[in-house]
Amino acid sequence: MTFELFPTTEAGRQFVALAEQHATDFATRAEKHDREGSFPFENFEALDKSGFMAAALPAEFGGMGVESIYDIMVGISRLARGDASTAIAANMHITGGSAIVRHMRRCETNGDDKTAALIRALLQQVAKNKLVMCFPTTEAGTDLNSPMMEAVPTDGGYILNGRKIFGTISPAAHLFFPIVRVPSGPEQFLTATALVARDVPGVEVKDNWDSLGMRASGSNDVIFTNCFIPEERLFAKRESYGKIGKGNTDFALIGYLPLIAAFVGIAETARDFAVNVVQTQRKGRNLKRLCDRVPIQHFIAEIEIELAASRAITERVGCAAAAFLRKYATEDAPTDEANLLNKEVQCMKYVVNRKAIDIVDKAMIVCGGAAYMSKHPLARLYRDVRAGPFMQPFAPYEAFEYIGKIALGLDPQIDR
Amino acid sequence: MTFELFPTTEAGRQFVALAEQHATDFATRAEKHDREGSFPFENFEALDKSGFMAAALPAEFGGMGVESIYDIMVGISRLARGDASTAIAANMHITGGSAIVRHMRRCETNGDDKTAALIRALLQQVAKNKLVMCFPTTEAGTDLNSPMMEAVPTDGGYILNGRKIFGTISPAAHLFFPIVRVPSGPEQFLTATALVARDVPGVEVKDNWDSLGMRASGSNDVIFTNCFIPEERLFAKRESYGKIGKGNTDFALIGYLPLIAAFVGIAETARDFAVNVVQTQRKGRNLKRLCDRVPIQHFIAEIEIELAASRAITERVGCAAAAFLRKYATEDAPTDEANLLNKEVQCMKYVVNRKAIDIVDKAMIVCGGAAYMSKHPLARLYRDVRAGPFMQPFAPYEAFEYIGKIALGLDPQIDR
Amino acid sequence: MTFELFPTTEAGRQFVALAEQHATDFATRAEKHDREGSFPFENFEALDKSGFMAAALPAEFGGMGVESIYDIMVGISRLARGDASTAIAANMHITGGSAIVRHMRRCETNGDDKTAALIRALLQQVAKNKLVMCFPTTEAGTDLNSPMMEAVPTDGGYILNGRKIFGTISPAAHLFFPIVRVPSGPEQFLTATALVARDVPGVEVKDNWDSLGMRASGSNDVIFTNCFIPEERLFAKRESYGKIGKGNTDFALIGYLPLIAAFVGIAETARDFAVNVVQTQRKGRNLKRLCDRVPIQHFIAEIEIELAASRAITERVGCAAAAFLRKYATEDAPTDEANLLNKEVQCMKYVVNRKAIDIVDKAMIVCGGAAYMSKHPLARLYRDVRAGPFMQPFAPYEAFEYIGKIALGLDPQIDR
Amino acid sequence: MTFELFPTTEAGRQFVALAEQHATDFATRAEKHDREGSFPFENFEALDKSGFMAAALPAEFGGMGVESIYDIMVGISRLARGDASTAIAANMHITGGSAIVRHMRRCETNGDDKTAALIRALLQQVAKNKLVMCFPTTEAGTDLNSPMMEAVPTDGGYILNGRKIFGTISPAAHLFFPIVRVPSGPEQFLTATALVARDVPGVEVKDNWDSLGMRASGSNDVIFTNCFIPEERLFAKRESYGKIGKGNTDFALIGYLPLIAAFVGIAETARDFAVNVVQTQRKGRNLKRLCDRVPIQHFIAEIEIELAASRAITERVGCAAAAFLRKYATEDAPTDEANLLNKEVQCMKYVVNRKAIDIVDKAMIVCGGAAYMSKHPLARLYRDVRAGPFMQPFAPYEAFEYIGKIALGLDPQIDR
Repeated sequence: MTFELFPTTEAGRQFVALAEQHATDFATRAEKHDREGSFPFENFEALDKSGFMAAALPAEFGGMGVESIYDIMVGISRLARGDASTAIAANMHITGGSAIVRHMRRCETNGDDKTAALIRALLQQVAKNKLVMCFPTTEAGTDLNSPMMEAVPTDGGYILNGRKIFGTISPAAHLFFPIVRVPSGPEQFLTATALVARDVPGVEVKDNWDSLGMRASGSNDVIFTNCFIPEERLFAKRESYGKIGKGNTDFALIGYLPLIAAFVGIAETARDFAVNVVQTQRKGRNLKRLCDRVPIQHFIAEIEIELAASRAITERVGCAAAAFLRKYATEDAPTDEANLLNKEVQCMKYVVNRKAIDIVDKAMIVCGGAAYMSKHPLARLYRDVRAGPFMQPFAPYEAFEYIGKIALGLDPQIDR
Repeated sequence: MTFELFPTTEAGRQFVALAEQHATDFATRAEKHDREGSFPFENFEALDKSGFMAAALPAEFGGMGVESIYDIMVGISRLARGDASTAIAANMHITGGSAIVRHMRRCETNGDDKTAALIRALLQQVAKNKLVMCFPTTEAGTDLNSPMMEAVPTDGGYILNGRKIFGTISPAAHLFFPIVRVPSGPEQFLTATALVARDVPGVEVKDNWDSLGMRASGSNDVIFTNCFIPEERLFAKRESYGKIGKGNTDFALIGYLPLIAAFVGIAETARDFAVNVVQTQRKGRNLKRLCDRVPIQHFIAEIEIELAASRAITERVGCAAAAFLRKYATEDAPTDEANLLNKEVQCMKYVVNRKAIDIVDKAMIVCGGAAYMSKHPLARLYRDVRAGPFMQPFAPYEAFEYIGKIALGLDPQIDR
Repeated sequence: MTFELFPTTEAGRQFVALAEQHATDFATRAEKHDREGSFPFENFEALDKSGFMAAALPAEFGGMGVESIYDIMVGISRLARGDASTAIAANMHITGGSAIVRHMRRCETNGDDKTAALIRALLQQVAKNKLVMCFPTTEAGTDLNSPMMEAVPTDGGYILNGRKIFGTISPAAHLFFPIVRVPSGPEQFLTATALVARDVPGVEVKDNWDSLGMRASGSNDVIFTNCFIPEERLFAKRESYGKIGKGNTDFALIGYLPLIAAFVGIAETARDFAVNVVQTQRKGRNLKRLCDRVPIQHFIAEIEIELAASRAITERVGCAAAAFLRKYATEDAPTDEANLLNKEVQCMKYVVNRKAIDIVDKAMIVCGGAAYMSKHPLARLYRDVRAGPFMQPFAPYEAFEYIGKIALGLDPQIDR
Repeated sequence: MTFELFPTTEAGRQFVALAEQHATDFATRAEKHDREGSFPFENFEALDKSGFMAAALPAEFGGMGVESIYDIMVGISRLARGDASTAIAANMHITGGSAIVRHMRRCETNGDDKTAALIRALLQQVAKNKLVMCFPTTEAGTDLNSPMMEAVPTDGGYILNGRKIFGTISPAAHLFFPIVRVPSGPEQFLTATALVARDVPGVEVKDNWDSLGMRASGSNDVIFTNCFIPEERLFAKRESYGKIGKGNTDFALIGYLPLIAAFVGIAETARDFAVNVVQTQRKGRNLKRLCDRVPIQHFIAEIEIELAASRAITERVGCAAAAFLRKYATEDAPTDEANLLNKEVQCMKYVVNRKAIDIVDKAMIVCGGAAYMSKHPLARLYRDVRAGPFMQPFAPYEAFEYIGKIALGLDPQIDR
C-alpha cells in the first residue's frame, strides 16, 4: 500500500510501529470476537504489555509521550486495520489520558497546584497499576452538551445518578469519567467530569452490548446509582450546559479525531483485501484473472480515489488540529476559533465515514457473493464501518446544520 | 404509504392481498429467524395453506393463475416488507412454476404433446402434494451461461455431477431443477435444466447457509453426486452454452424480476419505520419531535425521492417485461429484442438495489444509534438489503458493461 | 432509441408526431438562435400553421383536443429534443390553454354561465386570430404564492402594477395572464389571475433576456404600469395568498409538468449524440472505435441507467397527474390529496433535472474536448439543461423541505 | 475564508501574494473578456510588470525563484479566483519555464554543458525580452504520448509539420514548444520537444478559440507548415512514443498540477460568492435572510465539505509531487515510482474537477434564478469549471482505467 498516513514525531513513529504489530496479531482473532460479541481481553493484555496503552502518558509516568493528536490518529487507524473494535476501545483510554495530561499541564501553568498534584497522583496510579479508563459521555434522548446524569452536592462530595450508553471499553475499565451536570440554580446547570472507580457502590457495568458491528468494543451501558464521590473527583466545572463549542473543546477533539481515523484503517483493509482477491482470483470459462477485466479496474480506481480523498482530509485536518492543540495548550481556545476548526473536523468526519462505507461496498462488489458470507472479512467490515455516522458529537443531519451555520458566521446552536 | 405499486389483474390483486396478510404475520418472526439463521418452515406452511405458493399455477391445478410477471413482482415486494428472506425463497418456487407453465403451454402450441403431458403430470403432482421447487443455478467460479455441473448421457438417462451454491429455499425443497451442461462434442456443450427429486441417491442439501443477511432464505449449497435421472427429466436443451441472452430468457426474466422487486419492499419498510420513529420520538433538552427538525425533513425527502424513482422504474420495466412475455408466449423472442429488454431490466436492478441500500442507510441516520443494535429492525434490513447487488445474472461491474454494449449495438459478450 | 415515452390517447399520438416533425426542423436553427439569443419567431409560425399551438383547445375551437397532461408532457419532451427553448415557450401557451379550458368546463358544470361564456369568447378569439398567450408568474424576491404585483379595484375594474420576470414566450405574446394579489383587508390579499392584452397602455415587454441557456425562450421581464383591466378580466380569485398547495393546483400541475418533461428530451438528445459519436469516432494510434473501449461502455451504461430512471418517473408521475386531473375536473381537489401528488411531482422534478444534468455531463465526457467548443450541440445542452433546477415552484432547497414535510404529514408551509 | 491553501517557501509566499493582488484586479475584467472571448493582453502586461511571469526563473535571470511545484499550484489557484482563463494561460508559460530550468540543471549536473549553455541563453532571452512561451501538446484524434506532428530531419535541422489544438496563451506567445515525433525507423518514432519562434515561416496562430468557457485563455489552434528549425532547437529526444509514464514525467507533472489547482480557485470563488449572497439577500414575504433558512445552511455545508476535501487532496498530492520533483531533480524517476505518484495526481484531478463542478452547481442553487443570467459571475464559473475534466493527460474514462491498472500493479497501457 502506498501513500499511507505517516506520523510526524519520533514518539509517533514508535506508536505507529507498535500499532502495526498489534494489528497483525489482532486480525487473527477479529472474526471470533465479532461472532461471539466478546470483549478481546487478551488484546488489551497485549496492548498493556507493549506499552501501547500508555502511549499518551509522558515519559515520567513510563509512557510513550505521544503528544501529537495527528500521530495518535495515524496509530489508531493502523490498529483498526486489524480490528476496529479494539482500536476504538483502546482510543477511549489513550486519548482520555491525553486530555488528562493536558489538564494537568494547564493547572501547573495556571498555578492550580492542588489539582495538578491530584491529577499527577491519579496518572501515577494509572501507570503503575495499568488501570484502564473509560469516558462514557452519551445518554439516550439528549446531546453531549446536555447530559442528564446529575452530580448533586452533598457533604464532602457529590451523589451521582445517571445512565450512560455506548460505554466503549467498559468491560476492562477500572476508572469511569462520565460527563455530568451539576445544579447551579433553578433549571440551571454546570457541566463537569466525574471520576468514579469501578468498585464504588452503585456502579453497574451491564453486559448488554449486542450490536450490528464493532461487536468487540464492549460499548455497554454503565449505570450510576447513588454513587458517592469526594469533592476533588469532580473536575473541570464549566458554564457550558446546553451550549455547542463552549469550552472543553480539548476532550471532544482529542477523543473523536482518532475515532474518525479508525475508519481510514477499515477502508484500507477493505481496499487491500479487494486488490488481493482480484489479483489472484480467476473466474469464468476462460479463467481470466479478475484484475485483468477493465470493469474491475474501474471499481478499484473508484476505491483509490475515495481512499486518496479520505487520507488527504485526515492528514490536513489532523495536522491542523494538532497545531491548534499545541497553540492552546495552556489556555482555552476562543470559541469562534474552536468552532472554525470543529467545522473542518466535521467535514473530515463526513468524508471519512462515507468514503469508508463506499470503499467497503465496492470491495464487496469486486469480491462477489463470497463477501456475503458471515465469516468473510468484508461481511464484518460492512457491519463495523456503519458505526461511523452514529459517532459523536453530531448525527449527519446535525453535522450539516452545524457546518453550515459556522460557515455562515451564525450562532452554531442547532435545531434540537 | 401512498403511491405504492399496484397489481394490474384480478388474480394479481388477490395475490397481493395475500402477500400483505402474510407479511404482517411473518414480520413478527423475522428477527428470530434472522438471529438464528433458521429456515422459517412455519412461514411456508402458512403460504401453502393460503394458496400463495400456488400463485403461478393455472386454476385447473388449483392455483391462483397469476400470469402477469409484474403482478408477481408487486406481490413479492409486499411479502418482502415483512420478511425479505421468505419473500425471495417463495419467489424461487413461484416463478419457477411460472416458467414451467409457460414451457408447457409452448409445448402444447408447438405440438410437442409428449413433453406437455409430462409437465402436466408434474404440475399435478406439485399441486396435489404441495411439492416445493428449488432452481439452483449459481456455481462458484463461473457464470450462469456456463454451468460446470454436467449431465453425462448414460443408459436411459443422465448421470449428474456438480455443486450449486445459493440454493435458496433448499431446506424445504422436494424437487430441484439445476441448470446443467450436456457434452455435445469436444469442448462443446448444450445447456439444459434437469429435474431431480430430493430423494434421488446422491442429492445432498448442505446446512451451510450462514450469511450476512437474508439469513432465513435457506440458500444452502446443493450437491449432486452421480445422480441418475431418466431421459425425460432433462428439459429445454439449447445451444446457448457460454452465450449471453440466447434463449431461455424466460426463466431469467421470470425468476429475477421479482427478486429485484423484493428490494422495493425492503426500502418501503425502512422508509415507513423511519417516518414512524421521527414522528413520535422526541430528543434534546426541548423534547422537540424529530420530524419537526428541518434537517430530518431533508433526509426524509431524500428517501422519498429515491423511493419514487425506485418504484417508477420497477413499474415501467415490470410492465414492459409482462408485455414482452405475453408477446412471446409461444415462441422464443428474437435475441436482440430480448437483450434490449434485459438492458432495461439491468438498469432497473441497478437503480432498485442502490436506492434500497441508500434508503436503509438514511433510515438508520434519522433513527440514530438505536439502529445499530442487533435487534433493531433496521440493523437486519441493513444486512438483508446488501444482497441485492450480488444477485444474478450480473455483478454490478458486469452489468455496466452489458448495458453499455447493448446500448451501443455491440455483441453483449462481456469481458470474463 | 428504445423505451421512449409514448402518449396514451389518439389526440396525444397526433400531437407527439407533430412534435417530432417540428423538432427535426427546429434543431437546424437551434444553434443560431442560441448564439444570437434571438426569439425563434419562424418556429412559432410553423407551430401555428401545423396546429401544434392549438393542441389543448377542443375540436370545437379547431384544436387538437389533447386532454391528457401526460400526453402533453410527452409531446413537449419530443419538441425539446430539437430545441428546448422553443419547447418551453410553446408549453407556456399550450398548457395555459389547457388550464383555461378546464376553468371553462368547471364554470359550465357549476352553473357559472357568465364566466363560461366569457372564456368561450376568449378561446374563440385565441383560436381565430392565433393569439399567443403568456402566463408570467415569477417576481423577484418573493414566491409564487405571494405575488407582489397588485390589482387595485377601481371604477369598473382594476389598476395593475407590477414587474414579472421569466416571462417566457413574451416576444410573441398577444395576451398576458399575470398572477396578482388583490387587497382584501389590512395586510390581507386574495390571489387572482388577470388578463391583459399586449396593447393595453402600460404594458411593456422588455428585450432583456440574456441568459446562460434557454436563450431562445424569450423569457423577458414584463412590466405593468397602471394598466386598467375591466372587472371580468380578473379570474379565479382565491383566498390562498401566501399559502402552499391551496387551490389553483391545476395551473401549477398543468404548466410545470411538461416543463419538467422537456429535460427528458434534452437528456435523450445528449444520449443519442454521444452514442452516435462513440459509434463512429476513432481515436488513438490504433484507430479503435471509441465504442469498443470498455470504459466508454461504462459511461454509456451510466447514461442509460439515468435515462431509464428519468423516463420511468416521468411516466409514472405524469400518468398519476393525468388521472388526478381527470378525477378533479369539475371541483377543487382536497388540499391534502393535491399536496401528496405534488410531493411526487417534486420528486420527479428533482430526479429528471439532476439526471438530465448528469447525462449531458457524461455525454460531454465521452465526446471529449470537442464538446467544449461553443458551436458543439453539447455545449448548448450543457447551458440549457442547467435551467431545470431554477424552475418553479420550488428551488431545490425548498423542494426537499416541502417533500419532507408532506411525507411526514406536516403543514407544508416552508421556511421562507 | 479559512483553511486556505498556503505556500511552503518564502518565494512561494511572495508569488501567492502577487497572485492575490492580480486576482482582485483581473476579476474586474473577467466578465468582459468572457463575453467577448477576447484575450486579456492587459492582464499579461500587468503580470509581466509585477514579475509574476518570471516566477519560475531563478534569481540569476531576474526571476522569483519559486521552485516548489506546490507553491506554484497555490499561486495559480489564487489567480484563478479572479480569472481562471488568465490563470491557466499564465500557468502554461510559468510551468513551462520551470520545466526548462529543471532541464538546464539536469544538463549541468550530467555534464551536457552544450545544452545547458543553449538553455541558459534561451532563458536569458526570455527574461530580458519578456518573451512569452506556449507549449502546445494536444492534437485531435490522438493522445499526448503519440503526437502526429512530425519533425523530419533535414540538412542542419528539422522540418516540422502538424497542427496543435488547445494552444493556450498562443495570442501572446513569442516562442512555441510543441511536442513532436521524430522518425526513427519503419513505423517507429522518438518523441521530442521543438522550439519554434513565432516569426519562423510556416507558423500560424489561428484566432479560432470560441469555447463554452475559459474563453479568455486564447487556446487557439497553432499550425506548423514546413517550419525549419536548426538541430539544437529539438530537445529531449526520448524513446517513449506511445508509452504511458515513460520519461518526461517532469513536464506532465509540472504543467498539469497547477492547472488542476486552478479549479480549487474557481470553487473558492463560487463558495464565497454564494456565502455572501445568502448572508445579505432577503426573500419571501417575511424578508428572512437566506442564510437563516436551515435548508440553505445544508447546501452551504455540502459546499464546505466538498471544498475541504478538494483542498486537502490538493495539498497532500501537491506536496508529494514537490518532494518527488526535488528527489528526482537530476535524474529520471523510475517509471514505476512516477506512475504511483501519477496515480495519486489523477485521483486528485478527479476529486478537484468534480468537486469544483458540484460546488459551482450548489452555489447556483442557493443564489437562485439570478445565477442563470449571462452576466452573473456564477454563469461564467459554470462554463469555466467544466473545462476541468477535458484537461490532459487523461479523459475521465481513461483516468479510471489508468488508476485501476496502477493500483493493481498492471501495465498502465490503457485501452485506446
